Amino acid sequence: MSTRPVAHWIHAHPQADSFNSLLFREGVEALSRDYDVVTSDLYRQGFDPVLAARDFGDPLGRPGNVVDLMGEVFAEGRVPDDVAEEQRRLAAADLIVLQFPLWWYGPPAILKGWFDRVLTNGFAYGPNDPETGLPLRYGDGLLSGRRALVIVTAGEDDRSIGSRGISGDIDQLLFPLTHGTLWYTGIEPLDLHVVHDADGLDADDVERETARLLARLDGVVDEVPSRPYRRLKDGDYRGTRALRADLLPGRTDLDIHRIR
Amino acid sequence: MSTRPVAHWIHAHPQADSFNSLLFREGVEALSRDYDVVTSDLYRQGFDPVLAARDFGDPLGRPGNVVDLMGEVFAEGRVPDDVAEEQRRLAAADLIVLQFPLWWYGPPAILKGWFDRVLTNGFAYGPNDPETGLPLRYGDGLLSGRRALVIVTAGEDDRSIGSRGISGDIDQLLFPLTHGTLWYTGIEPLDLHVVHDADGLDADDVERETARLLARLDGVVDEVPSRPYRRLKDGDYRGTRALRADLLPGRTDLDIHRIR
Repeated sequence: MSTRPVAHWIHAHPQADSFNSLLFREGVEALSRDYDVVTSDLYRQGFDPVLAARDFGDPLGRPGNVVDLMGEVFAEGRVPDDVAEEQRRLAAADLIVLQFPLWWYGPPAILKGWFDRVLTNGFAYGPNDPETGLPLRYGDGLLSGRRALVIVTAGEDDRSIGSRGISGDIDQLLFPLTHGTLWYTGIEPLDLHVVHDADGLDADDVERETARLLARLDGVVDEVPSRPYRRLKDGDYRGTRALRADLLPGRTDLDIHRIR
Repeated sequence: MSTRPVAHWIHAHPQADSFNSLLFREGVEALSRDYDVVTSDLYRQGFDPVLAARDFGDPLGRPGNVVDLMGEVFAEGRVPDDVAEEQRRLAAADLIVLQFPLWWYGPPAILKGWFDRVLTNGFAYGPNDPETGLPLRYGDGLLSGRRALVIVTAGEDDRSIGSRGISGDIDQLLFPLTHGTLWYTGIEPLDLHVVHDADGLDADDVERETARLLARLDGVVDEVPSRPYRRLKDGDYRGTRALRADLLPGRTDLDIHRIR
């Protein structure tokens, strides 16, 4: 019986001959030294990202909001086969790798819809914790114990998506993914792995960026985030679901949700 | 010949009997008093949000990155029919309305992919301005002169997606849409229209929220944003594409990109 940890690498780029696809192939091979790697190559699978009637239980035609209906569908074991397979892969993983090009400052639709359809109520996040009365979210979602590495390629340089860059700081631009999606479900995001100027890399750049990713993967089994997010149940948001007034008073930026 | 302004309302909710769909029907009717309203009801149209080979010119199989290839496809008049139709509607509009439920702190995949496929290089943003040498982006994209109203329904209350809420401030969560997508292409976003607690509205709440939206639409023809974004060509990012050191020194949050 294998005691090796398991990684689930989710890849979302339309061109099989792209730089992204090269990083995917080389990365999976390198990561396989330390992990049993399972892949979801969303374009090659033809994954359908549109959350629709099949996901929330039509044609039974029950009324209700999408979140509640998806919870019922999950509880009754009626999730669509393609979603059930992704849920199996994700549930079995210790490390999640998400790799995509930055399109309109977020993931491509095929990956956004993977979150919409796969991370359902009852699978990825739960009702309230009977002990604390708090929702099982933000550090304590149903997928807790897992870590995630987000690998993103961007056409811009580190000034324009840097901390004062015109396009906004990429760490904050991806907060809906790293905090609102991963951390919400309990998955701890590691520091982002960003490739800048990705539309204009020459052969040397490709070699350098590939080596940089492989070096990162080489140590990922022991990696921890440099600036973790706050955990709901630690009390920093006690009472109101807003950050306690004595913590970083006056600030309203997204960075207040990190511990340091 | 009509001299009425034109609105393009893009709606993205899977349930035809949902609260969102009610707001859509009532909103379009109300807006029709002041505008000729054209709609894109993405779920009812069956819009395919996956940017794929047809969008960047395969099966010609030309090498290159997706952005450049999509620019060539647009310049050669070969965009897919469904995208061309959306581009026609958008180009003809003075006001864009984007309406969607907040899923994983962003738009549903069907709407994310509408941005990915419709807002192509050459249509929505351009090369450098020959006069200034600056890219035609951030206030000066090819869709400038238009305004946008973003209507978003959220399951959470105004504390948890408020300015210090655990889920992050919704204005910053949607920065990739309002600034990175709309403003990038020149479309000026008005202040967000947010409906909170949208999964738990009773009949009175629905009536109140519908009335609140209709009142907002009643004045939208004259509305301006309360806190506009900075324009690239105004010089605030001179030289480096990062905000000038003398403006809001030391701050790195997304709010620095607003004029006030």
